Amino acid sequence: MLLTTLYIIGITAEAMTGALAAGKRHMDWFGVMLVASATAIGGGTVRDILLGHYPLGWVANPQYLAITCLAGLFTTMVAPLVVRFHKVFVMLDSLGLIVFSIIGCRVAMDMGLSPLICIVAAVVTGVFGGLLRDLICRRQPLVLHKELYASVSFLAGAMYYGMLYVGIDSNIVTVSTLVVGFCIRMAAVQFSWSLPVFHFEENDTGTAEAKPKA
Amino acid sequence: MLLTTLYIIGITAEAMTGALAAGKRHMDWFGVMLVASATAIGGGTVRDILLGHYPLGWVANPQYLAITCLAGLFTTMVAPLVVRFHKVFVMLDSLGLIVFSIIGCRVAMDMGLSPLICIVAAVVTGVFGGLLRDLICRRQPLVLHKELYASVSFLAGAMYYGMLYVGIDSNIVTVSTLVVGFCIRMAAVQFSWSLPVFHFEENDTGTAEAKPKA
Amino acid sequence: MLLTTLYIIGITAEAMTGALAAGKRHMDWFGVMLVASATAIGGGTVRDILLGHYPLGWVANPQYLAITCLAGLFTTMVAPLVVRFHKVFVMLDSLGLIVFSIIGCRVAMDMGLSPLICIVAAVVTGVFGGLLRDLICRRQPLVLHKELYASVSFLAGAMYYGMLYVGIDSNIVTVSTLVVGFCIRMAAVQFSWSLPVFHFEENDTGTAEAKPKA
Repeated sequence: MLLTTLYIIGITAEAMTGALAAGKRHMDWFGVMLVASATAIGGGTVRDILLGHYPLGWVANPQYLAITCLAGLFTTMVAPLVVRFHKVFVMLDSLGLIVFSIIGCRVAMDMGLSPLICIVAAVVTGVFGGLLRDLICRRQPLVLHKELYASVSFLAGAMYYGMLYVGIDSNIVTVSTLVVGFCIRMAAVQFSWSLPVFHFEENDTGTAEAKPKA
Repeated sequence: MLLTTLYIIGITAEAMTGALAAGKRHMDWFGVMLVASATAIGGGTVRDILLGHYPLGWVANPQYLAITCLAGLFTTMVAPLVVRFHKVFVMLDSLGLIVFSIIGCRVAMDMGLSPLICIVAAVVTGVFGGLLRDLICRRQPLVLHKELYASVSFLAGAMYYGMLYVGIDSNIVTVSTLVVGFCIRMAAVQFSWSLPVFHFEENDTGTAEAKPKA
Repeated sequence: MLLTTLYIIGITAEAMTGALAAGKRHMDWFGVMLVASATAIGGGTVRDILLGHYPLGWVANPQYLAITCLAGLFTTMVAPLVVRFHKVFVMLDSLGLIVFSIIGCRVAMDMGLSPLICIVAAVVTGVFGGLLRDLICRRQPLVLHKELYASVSFLAGAMYYGMLYVGIDSNIVTVSTLVVGFCIRMAAVQFSWSLPVFHFEENDTGTAEAKPKA
């Protein structure tokens, strides 16, 4: 199935970028495998736990965990290549974001949950892997600051749900969401689109302003 | 129901203070909604996951998640007001603490769990939202240092459980716990009551002392 | 049962070292109990949540939570002793690591899960308590940097599963795994064995190398 193939490509790419984050923190091989796996399958794990969807994806299919661990270790040997092909990984990461969002929405829909929860499931699946990676690596969570990431995940989830709701063929919905979502995300990277940032500084007059990121 | 109304007030206030924390970290709107929601409904989420109480509160009732996200975004527009009415928010936060503790205890009691677990459920529901907020915002967890917070949650849970155990009418128990818990918490704020702090410094003689916070 | 006795010794020792970590962060008594409990029973909690194994160990047996909280508070009174007997605690921590790994593997096996997941359950149970402790205390996760820790947990889980798989008597398997795992771990401490560390520095040539920790 197209989605499964793209999922495997997605978790492999995410695991490799996650491994680099572990390398920046000088972690040992266990740390590399942990961060790689958290980045790649952590979002789906959080989604499954929040929805009570057991067994978790990788518990039922341990080969996915094996893939992320091996991809992580592999990265320690080819790190310079990952750096040189940075742009390819940005594209793979963006592809993975849409794939994960679609899968997350799908899982929630199959459980008969409300539209809002299906879209939340899409965002959690797409975004929480990076959040976990940054929490373990003790750095500022990238997904809360970067160009449109969670927003694209939200749009992908909403598009996927909406198109299925009006009865469009499932394969067409999947492919359209992948194409549109990927393009919006790559455009956001290209043109540095981002959500408004909330700057709050406490001072005597208690002023605060929200403005787009400079 | 009184508890539901107070719960909505509580999560709204918690979401607004959570949004300010996100603003201090210059997060974008997604970050604001994430931190606001984590602060407001994160405690109940952790409680439900620990107890295996599915579906989670906000998954079954997505309007609560919508409220916290909207309250968070609203805060970005009225942040100076939140600062000016800081004392009101401290009171609302204290009210929310007791409401969350009562609800947490209630959920565990309905599952037939032991007294200790019911009280733990109260504390987790009351306190873990702030803990999650501080973990995401990468700052020293406030609830582990501030004036009596977890202790008040503990007392509220114990009082609620105990009074129901001896057969007092449920409405009386709820109102009494709210009043007593709120008063103890506000007194703790007023008089800076706090738990003893454990200071551990490793030195040659390995001395350490626990003393009340100065 | 031998395993239960060793488990109680293990969680007590883990709670005491966890309490010291809370003391270094000047947390109050609630923080001490939280970190002590997270260190001691946090690994098993994460394992149960990942496997959907409800009720959690300490929810079904609240006495374990009471033990960790009391052990944590007790540590605030005898901290100098814990420092003086540091080597004893390293041994007890190593013993606890193997006990937790065996129990984690056992739980997953009883659920009929695959060999890889059983070994992952062993590692999660053995290692995630320390990870949670370091996340709450906002410090570099020790388990991702120290001498063979997760590796020993992995080996213990693999050994336990393998020996049971080929039909060796359960008691012999438990005792052998305890002895062998404990010896390997203490040897790792003695000789500073550790996994290779992944050092990744981003520079113009994008070089990176993985080498054993100096």
